[in-house]
Amino acid sequence: MANSQFLEGGGLTSPQGFAATGVACGLKKNGQRDLMLLVADRECAAAGVYTRNVVQAAPVLFTRKRTRTGRARVVVINAGVANACTGDEGMARCEAMASAVSAAVGVSGDLVLVCSTGVIGRQLPMDLITAGIHAAAPLVSTDGGHAAALAIMTTDTHPKEAALAIATEGGTVRIGGVAKGSGMIAPNMATMLSVLTTDAQVEPRELQRVLTAAVDRTFNRVTVDGDTSTNDTVLLLASGAAGVRLQRGTADFAAFEEGVEVICTQLARAIARDGEGATKLVTVQVGGAADIAGAETIARTIANSPLVKTALFGNDPNWGRVMMAAGRAGVPFDPTRVDLDLAGIPVVRSGQPVPFDIDIASAALKATDVTVALTLAEGEASAECWTCDFSYDYVRINADYTT
Amino acid sequence: MANSQFLEGGGLTSPQGFAATGVACGLKKNGQRDLMLLVADRECAAAGVYTRNVVQAAPVLFTRKRTRTGRARVVVINAGVANACTGDEGMARCEAMASAVSAAVGVSGDLVLVCSTGVIGRQLPMDLITAGIHAAAPLVSTDGGHAAALAIMTTDTHPKEAALAIATEGGTVRIGGVAKGSGMIAPNMATMLSVLTTDAQVEPRELQRVLTAAVDRTFNRVTVDGDTSTNDTVLLLASGAAGVRLQRGTADFAAFEEGVEVICTQLARAIARDGEGATKLVTVQVGGAADIAGAETIARTIANSPLVKTALFGNDPNWGRVMMAAGRAGVPFDPTRVDLDLAGIPVVRSGQPVPFDIDIASAALKATDVTVALTLAEGEASAECWTCDFSYDYVRINADYTT
Repeated sequence: MANSQFLEGGGLTSPQGFAATGVACGLKKNGQRDLMLLVADRECAAAGVYTRNVVQAAPVLFTRKRTRTGRARVVVINAGVANACTGDEGMARCEAMASAVSAAVGVSGDLVLVCSTGVIGRQLPMDLITAGIHAAAPLVSTDGGHAAALAIMTTDTHPKEAALAIATEGGTVRIGGVAKGSGMIAPNMATMLSVLTTDAQVEPRELQRVLTAAVDRTFNRVTVDGDTSTNDTVLLLASGAAGVRLQRGTADFAAFEEGVEVICTQLARAIARDGEGATKLVTVQVGGAADIAGAETIARTIANSPLVKTALFGNDPNWGRVMMAAGRAGVPFDPTRVDLDLAGIPVVRSGQPVPFDIDIASAALKATDVTVALTLAEGEASAECWTCDFSYDYVRINADYTT
Repeated sequence: MANSQFLEGGGLTSPQGFAATGVACGLKKNGQRDLMLLVADRECAAAGVYTRNVVQAAPVLFTRKRTRTGRARVVVINAGVANACTGDEGMARCEAMASAVSAAVGVSGDLVLVCSTGVIGRQLPMDLITAGIHAAAPLVSTDGGHAAALAIMTTDTHPKEAALAIATEGGTVRIGGVAKGSGMIAPNMATMLSVLTTDAQVEPRELQRVLTAAVDRTFNRVTVDGDTSTNDTVLLLASGAAGVRLQRGTADFAAFEEGVEVICTQLARAIARDGEGATKLVTVQVGGAADIAGAETIARTIANSPLVKTALFGNDPNWGRVMMAAGRAGVPFDPTRVDLDLAGIPVVRSGQPVPFDIDIASAALKATDVTVALTLAEGEASAECWTCDFSYDYVRINADYTT
């Protein structure tokens, strides 16, 4: 990307005007950080993208409504309890959580956004939450991004952060972000949360457009269409602290759009790589499709196939499963004109098996980054999505999550 | 079912006019039976239901065309090689397989149906297949149904057979059937094959209608909509050997329809219970839906959720995952009016958690038959589907299927 560079070790607080922290308030049994607080030094333009699940957690209903105003200043996130399927009491506790933050940081309650992740169907323990908020408030700092990243983890094995700087005509602007992974990415994602920040100045309506487009091509490429959890949320706050105003139609705005997508891509791929029990990041590419929607549907169907994912875990070049998954995606194509490569090795040409050395193929599949590339002969459209393999540890992690 | 009774130990050859066997021709590495032959003593009315996968194996293309004539007399099935993604050569070998059967049993080639199941992308070893067919031909017998059931197994842990007799006005008719399981039932079924026989006399067109309706409510309730493999096939042959002609509109015909559905249900549930690595049969019931299609979609989405299935394996009453899966099915409903029971224990009423004893619930989930019952408040429609839990063994079985 021209005019931009990644900020090594950067994250949520790399852009100017943002302070954050993460504390342990006692929701996680192991005493680790479980409450994140992000506070901007001024009112920000704000945008949000939310789960499409029919069952939506209280904080999703709450925060969606808030971001419709296009303004926010604070984000609070707890990990451990999802506050989903908790009825009116759950909504009251979500509101109480926002009020506690408002009081603790001295910001109008209207500007506080709330996210939760964890077990569904349990009420938030408000004593712990409130104490945690008051403990966190004085600790927020401009180098607190990493602590924040730690505090939103659930079954993630490591924190997920990224930041970059873009040289624009008006000066440098920065985009930072943090994300927490989903249990399994696809097809049945646990909660995925991400918060992005920027010090560019962008109108709320434009900010929402940029975020929606970026999420569609990144986070939504890690999940099945519609396969969002009760709590999934991506937020973007623009402080304007860099003193650079970006307007649609300019090259700088385009660079900003691209920058948001790059950060989202980094975080989305990090989520896929860190799927529960994952041993590798799997990139599924579908090309030669009649349209992008069809390419995406086929790519997601392959990426969600347990039979494909277990074969990839076992480094088994069982390409027939990829063909089967592609064929059941509901998108018509001519199977006699299909090419397929696994980890760079041609296994199908024009729909027919290509002889290959199974040991070499199996060795290639042992990489931590594996690409499954299917090329149709229907048109010019292509799409890519990301997933992970499916291991014993996935079953172990999920067989006794609440007991 | 009035006027009908299960035939203990019955199967494919319980109806009159059918002889069968299963032999080992060397496709299975362990030397077990891998070739099934069913021969009727006369030309039969024949019906077939096939995979909806875009990628269809040669025997599916071949047999579908044959059953359009409504007549057949012989079914040959091999296990071990699916003859899918094998191009023109695969079709030629499928035709050669039918010709070999025709010669071996002395039946016109037009009346031979072929099914294959196993690894995709490998050509049939015709020397083994042909030798197997010639070995099997003289062995077919009216008590060979069980050997046939053994010969079509792949990762099945036991054979699947059922038969019943119906007392009609014109005398007794019998329906028998055999099935082989799918690797995992849902969402990404390996090949499911089933062959049914009856000694009733039924017109081919009526036979097809009966089979299509029964499959829709039974075998298709074990799979995700469209999630059929490259080879899935269900066949029904009616010999008429009982000398009882059944015509639509009569009570006897209705009893026959019901009988076919009962046999399909038995076999479908047996397949679900024997899913790869399964420790239990899971019945997902969705009631109170606006329409049957919606109820079915929600039931299937729950039944296909890896997070739900791993929780059931772990006997973890993590009902939030059921709510999440229901919510992502794409069918609108009011989540605040939902009731949910796990293994008969109320866990959600009117969308809110009901306190329950987690140890009692976990113990109840240890049963080999577990029901997940979700009741919406949208209407009167309901649907049921069957699946299994998702265990370590599923991963083990599938991680190195071909290597």
